[in-house]
Amino acid sequence: MHFADRLNKAIKEKGTPICVGLDPYLERIPESIKRKAVSSEKNPWVAAAEAILEFNKGIIDAVCDLVATVKPQISLFEQYGSEGMRVFAETVKYAKEKGLLVIADAKRSDIGVTAEAYARAFLGKVDFFGEELFGFDADAVTVNPYMGYDSVKPFIEQCKKFDKGIFVLVKTSNRSSGDLQDVISRENNIPNYELVGHLVESWGANDIGESGYSSVGAVVGATFPEQAKKLRSLMPNTIFLVPGYGAQGAGASDVRDCFNADGSGAIINSSRGIIFAYETMPEFGEEGFAEASRVAVLQMKEEIARAR
Amino acid sequence: MHFADRLNKAIKEKGTPICVGLDPYLERIPESIKRKAVSSEKNPWVAAAEAILEFNKGIIDAVCDLVATVKPQISLFEQYGSEGMRVFAETVKYAKEKGLLVIADAKRSDIGVTAEAYARAFLGKVDFFGEELFGFDADAVTVNPYMGYDSVKPFIEQCKKFDKGIFVLVKTSNRSSGDLQDVISRENNIPNYELVGHLVESWGANDIGESGYSSVGAVVGATFPEQAKKLRSLMPNTIFLVPGYGAQGAGASDVRDCFNADGSGAIINSSRGIIFAYETMPEFGEEGFAEASRVAVLQMKEEIARAR
Repeated sequence: MHFADRLNKAIKEKGTPICVGLDPYLERIPESIKRKAVSSEKNPWVAAAEAILEFNKGIIDAVCDLVATVKPQISLFEQYGSEGMRVFAETVKYAKEKGLLVIADAKRSDIGVTAEAYARAFLGKVDFFGEELFGFDADAVTVNPYMGYDSVKPFIEQCKKFDKGIFVLVKTSNRSSGDLQDVISRENNIPNYELVGHLVESWGANDIGESGYSSVGAVVGATFPEQAKKLRSLMPNTIFLVPGYGAQGAGASDVRDCFNADGSGAIINSSRGIIFAYETMPEFGEEGFAEASRVAVLQMKEEIARAR
Repeated sequence: MHFADRLNKAIKEKGTPICVGLDPYLERIPESIKRKAVSSEKNPWVAAAEAILEFNKGIIDAVCDLVATVKPQISLFEQYGSEGMRVFAETVKYAKEKGLLVIADAKRSDIGVTAEAYARAFLGKVDFFGEELFGFDADAVTVNPYMGYDSVKPFIEQCKKFDKGIFVLVKTSNRSSGDLQDVISRENNIPNYELVGHLVESWGANDIGESGYSSVGAVVGATFPEQAKKLRSLMPNTIFLVPGYGAQGAGASDVRDCFNADGSGAIINSSRGIIFAYETMPEFGEEGFAEASRVAVLQMKEEIARAR
């Protein structure tokens, strides 16, 4: 089934467009998990990776019946080298086994021949001495558009081949996003993020599913609601992946206009606000980190349902 | 010693600004290396990684007395998962042991808190349960500017702390680079790549070494010589990392204007044209792949010396 249809079906089944961001900062993982990892494994790289994996599994178990998607942030795995990447792959696999769609947040970009390696690694099959095997096999990956179409095309090819998706950075949630994204074009009198929005909508036009959405999505920050509203009107067939909710400061009213009129077309990500909810819910204690994340998802679900 | 000074010293010692790009496409690695890897290792992921590592070591051994820098392209490692990342780390380590400066071509981008994880992974120290250990410990890494200053700042902080460098994408060598990079700003009447060029020059202004160059370099494609000439004049204190030579079509005359008047300020990368030179030099045969790469470097050295 087409990626957009799989995603929309899962959102409908779960009854919420929430995406849980898996950003496993080791410093913030409960001490009990870290103590266990360190005591059973002397190599610090393996111990760090194991602590991250156990934490992720706890969160996934706690939220997998509530949400459709999770979004592991690969930088927090990659910093632990090959061991980190091992548990990145295991996290993707575990989440998929639990019925979740996995968006690898990697923001990759490179020239065509090299972008193809990334595209195959995250979404498709990789060459092994002539034989092809699935790589990380995520359902979708985030992509940076600075290098233009030929850096994105290899990802779109894998999307078509394996019913996968991508989310291209359009207007990002961070404070400095305007440095380049808000610069107004002389020719079209529109900011760069709108220009990229138009490109993204056109790149997806040849691969639209039955639900009316393409496999080429857009990252649109919840921290810029006015810009999101404008982009929503320009990109009717594009699914928005919306970061910035919670820890980055945006709330339910800020994401309202990321949806189309029928309430579809966006997934709202919260990472630290959910996975580290235990830090601000002392009633759960450290051991209750997973249960706290579940409560945080349920709260966010209500907030968004009211606003949507 | 400041990154720019280390780099300029090494270029002077080796007598050429060539950077050898390590893009180990498994399909193009000599059959003899692959046969050996497959016969000694049943797990295809390990076998692929071992073939890549042996190939890289052969190239590094053959060119380490000739050039100052190598640039491993991480996508070609990452596609082989944790095993690929293991040999990425080993390749970085081996090249450094052979006296080379290593530029990790990762083109990373993310919001501040997450960019910090990338910056620490590639250039600095990573948190392990309160203790800090070096990650990949490359000398420099490539960075994508689409998300603006706060996505680049964590890298600059690691540069200052550990005498490392970054190269920010400004005008890339691929055909579609103009989709966004060439769009003209209404306010300044300059293309986006020049605007990013100005930002890069300003981001590096607080960390300039004795050689007059900053730790914040720029990626400027050899395939766009006119644009490179303009950028050179706008960015006097910025070192250019220049891809696009050889396999991508640019020659020595195209890179002439990437240098400042004194012949410094640029490193010229060739990847496939050097490491797979054996494919077009039948006199070396497959077994002579490393020797062929050495000959290709020497040829390129002469071409560039004439043009510089």
